[in-house]
Amino acid sequence: MLQTVLPDVIRESIENKNWTRLASPDIDWPEFEIVAPELADYIRDIDKTDRVLLFRALPRDLKVDIFAFLDPETSDNLLLELTDAETRHILAELEPDDRTVLLGELPGQVTQRLLTLLSPDDLKEARQLLGYPEESIGRLMTPDYVAVRPSWTVAEALDHIRRHGHESETVNTVYVTDRSGKLIDALPLRRFILAEPHETVDSIMDRTVVSISAYEDREEAVRIMQRYDRIALPVVDSGGVLLGIVTFDDVFEVAEQEATEDFHRSVAIAPLKGSYWETSAVRLFRSRIGWLSILVFVNLISSGVISAFEETLAAYVTLAFFIPLIIDTGGNAGSQSATLMIRAISTGDIHLKQWGRVFMKELLIGAAIGLSLGALGAVLGVFRGGPAIGLVVFMTMATMLVMTNLIGMLMPFVLTRIKLDPAIASGPLITSIADAVGLVIYFSYARWILGL
Amino acid sequence: MLQTVLPDVIRESIENKNWTRLASPDIDWPEFEIVAPELADYIRDIDKTDRVLLFRALPRDLKVDIFAFLDPETSDNLLLELTDAETRHILAELEPDDRTVLLGELPGQVTQRLLTLLSPDDLKEARQLLGYPEESIGRLMTPDYVAVRPSWTVAEALDHIRRHGHESETVNTVYVTDRSGKLIDALPLRRFILAEPHETVDSIMDRTVVSISAYEDREEAVRIMQRYDRIALPVVDSGGVLLGIVTFDDVFEVAEQEATEDFHRSVAIAPLKGSYWETSAVRLFRSRIGWLSILVFVNLISSGVISAFEETLAAYVTLAFFIPLIIDTGGNAGSQSATLMIRAISTGDIHLKQWGRVFMKELLIGAAIGLSLGALGAVLGVFRGGPAIGLVVFMTMATMLVMTNLIGMLMPFVLTRIKLDPAIASGPLITSIADAVGLVIYFSYARWILGL
Repeated sequence: MLQTVLPDVIRESIENKNWTRLASPDIDWPEFEIVAPELADYIRDIDKTDRVLLFRALPRDLKVDIFAFLDPETSDNLLLELTDAETRHILAELEPDDRTVLLGELPGQVTQRLLTLLSPDDLKEARQLLGYPEESIGRLMTPDYVAVRPSWTVAEALDHIRRHGHESETVNTVYVTDRSGKLIDALPLRRFILAEPHETVDSIMDRTVVSISAYEDREEAVRIMQRYDRIALPVVDSGGVLLGIVTFDDVFEVAEQEATEDFHRSVAIAPLKGSYWETSAVRLFRSRIGWLSILVFVNLISSGVISAFEETLAAYVTLAFFIPLIIDTGGNAGSQSATLMIRAISTGDIHLKQWGRVFMKELLIGAAIGLSLGALGAVLGVFRGGPAIGLVVFMTMATMLVMTNLIGMLMPFVLTRIKLDPAIASGPLITSIADAVGLVIYFSYARWILGL
Repeated sequence: MLQTVLPDVIRESIENKNWTRLASPDIDWPEFEIVAPELADYIRDIDKTDRVLLFRALPRDLKVDIFAFLDPETSDNLLLELTDAETRHILAELEPDDRTVLLGELPGQVTQRLLTLLSPDDLKEARQLLGYPEESIGRLMTPDYVAVRPSWTVAEALDHIRRHGHESETVNTVYVTDRSGKLIDALPLRRFILAEPHETVDSIMDRTVVSISAYEDREEAVRIMQRYDRIALPVVDSGGVLLGIVTFDDVFEVAEQEATEDFHRSVAIAPLKGSYWETSAVRLFRSRIGWLSILVFVNLISSGVISAFEETLAAYVTLAFFIPLIIDTGGNAGSQSATLMIRAISTGDIHLKQWGRVFMKELLIGAAIGLSLGALGAVLGVFRGGPAIGLVVFMTMATMLVMTNLIGMLMPFVLTRIKLDPAIASGPLITSIADAVGLVIYFSYARWILGL
């Protein structure tokens, strides 16, 4: 169970639905940012009639913080019940990046209505942020940052930070820009605190800065932040002009969403827009049935193989005994090497050009797995159908495992090379391909060794 | 390709192996923290004879930063070549959390040798941090933080931060403790900057703090940081006394490692200690062969089912045609629902007690998938073997898909309930179970409908 940070009086008021008490000025509210996630959970879980009552009883500015933590469905639902004045206040006070997320997730008509409630400046900003491609850095960016000039003294810079820091999302990093707005440096706030007040900003700079383009894929921010241990990244245009910043919290969320998408893709589920609860049964069905149907046709290849060898099978029905063993084992080994590759490619551990070295390594591992499981299969084969069947199973397992292991390894490389997501290679697709390969090898050896 | 932040002169010196030039005092080094990840890559990729030469040519303090980014194999290898004096300097200057990671990852004898090189204070600290369980928060913790007292003024606090901030890993958050060391509050540094100097710390406190226990699993830190959007979490003992902090960069890495482990487990690969390149072929083989062998035996259940229905199969060899289709489709649907659950449980989207609602939702989805793919299968069945076979395939697909979908959904709940990792349920295991279920249903319907 997650710890609760809500004072008892607040939790009890909510649980007893005592909205008057909750709204009373006597309540000593903790820092809004800390209690917002917990209250967002309450708002999501409470029945719809009480939702607005609870929300209305909260302090004005807390409402804004809560909106940053609500899922799209609950936001949408809540916005329907709020007056234009209430909505206007929330929209005006939300951080620009959270506002972009909210506007981007809501149904089109709702977004249109909300845009009419924005101030002219915010509207311009929102239009601009919503103009970036859906999975780009631009969508996660906030234009609220603190920038100083190299010629200022540390004291002047601190004074500027003190005056403009209130509205900036993070003042832990201070950006240095030249007259044309070009980013020159990013310095941790502590360096200003630890420096002598009369030094110039120029003298504490090192002119080394890690930045990212607004049009870059948001996954790239995850990689750069992780590589350089940054908590915020400056976002620049093609000319190096500072446009805004992306902060670790948004990126952290992106990393988790991307991992979830990869997990789902690995079992042939099309990416879901929201969480399991946010996705209706109909939409879940749709995201699953597509690939399942395609795979039925892929599996017909295996059926075709069985059909082609029907006489062999009819003559030796015992051969059917090993069909599940052979096709599953091949699929399992193929999924393993495919998943190892997919993950290593996506975390940057393996680069595409290293495919040759990986191929040799997996050839070795596939051979070792093939010989081991082949020996195991041989014992089962002898036991079940005599030495000839044992030999067939051994040869099949050894050959097939080397091949399926390599197919599993190669597919993610090929898919990445032709700009497709390698994750679709794992699990079901590899399994179906491995099935067909395994069956061809099995029946060919059987026909040859059993002399059919 | 990742952007480079290394100045050309440095990159060229390394590429031309001009170590004298690299070591020359004329070189204007950028901030060490920013260039360290890139140099760590160079050190990893360069041949072993040049590794020490490159390392020796670098500025003294940069060496320390680089060690925080090296993989265990390269660190181990490099440490062998360094003198005791060099090693002592690196160990003394490493952040305590990075030191714990290094000591924890190296082979036992190496760790023992390194411990003898530590100062008495550092040795005590290292022993204490290494004393926490391997996957606990304690292992990631750094005892370097800045703490102030409630009675101080903001000016006094800032002065204290200025004096002690140099050695603390992050001064973005300032902790407030009472006389006994108990944690009372955690305040962003900016609140001190933005406050009036004569105010007391007490007056800017809100006494709301999110903390974590040193013995808690490190995955818990990921969840809490994400939920509360924190970049650092204070770590406390059972009495609430502040022991240290964990910072987002370590937690970010944990989140990625855990996701990788889950991916690997989902295809029956035992967790690897390091990355793909760090893991030898022998170790990769070992981590894969275990489950693959077990699954061979699980697959014998399916073989047993075929064996039990051998006469049915012999009478209607056409039935074999649909075996790959049926067992793969059942496995695919089961893997899908299992993976949906595993991921939703691990991200906190679904709680164990909600299993009833999930069951109903998946029953519905399974029925929809069963009817759709059943209809598809029926067409194929009629086409291939006439109306009776069509009916058998339809009934099998419909029944099997409802069942395998529910089995896939239930297993992660059951495994979590009995404190096993739900991830082992996905992919191969579910597939094997689904196979047996599918085959029993298939042959039973066949025997009944075909009147065998």
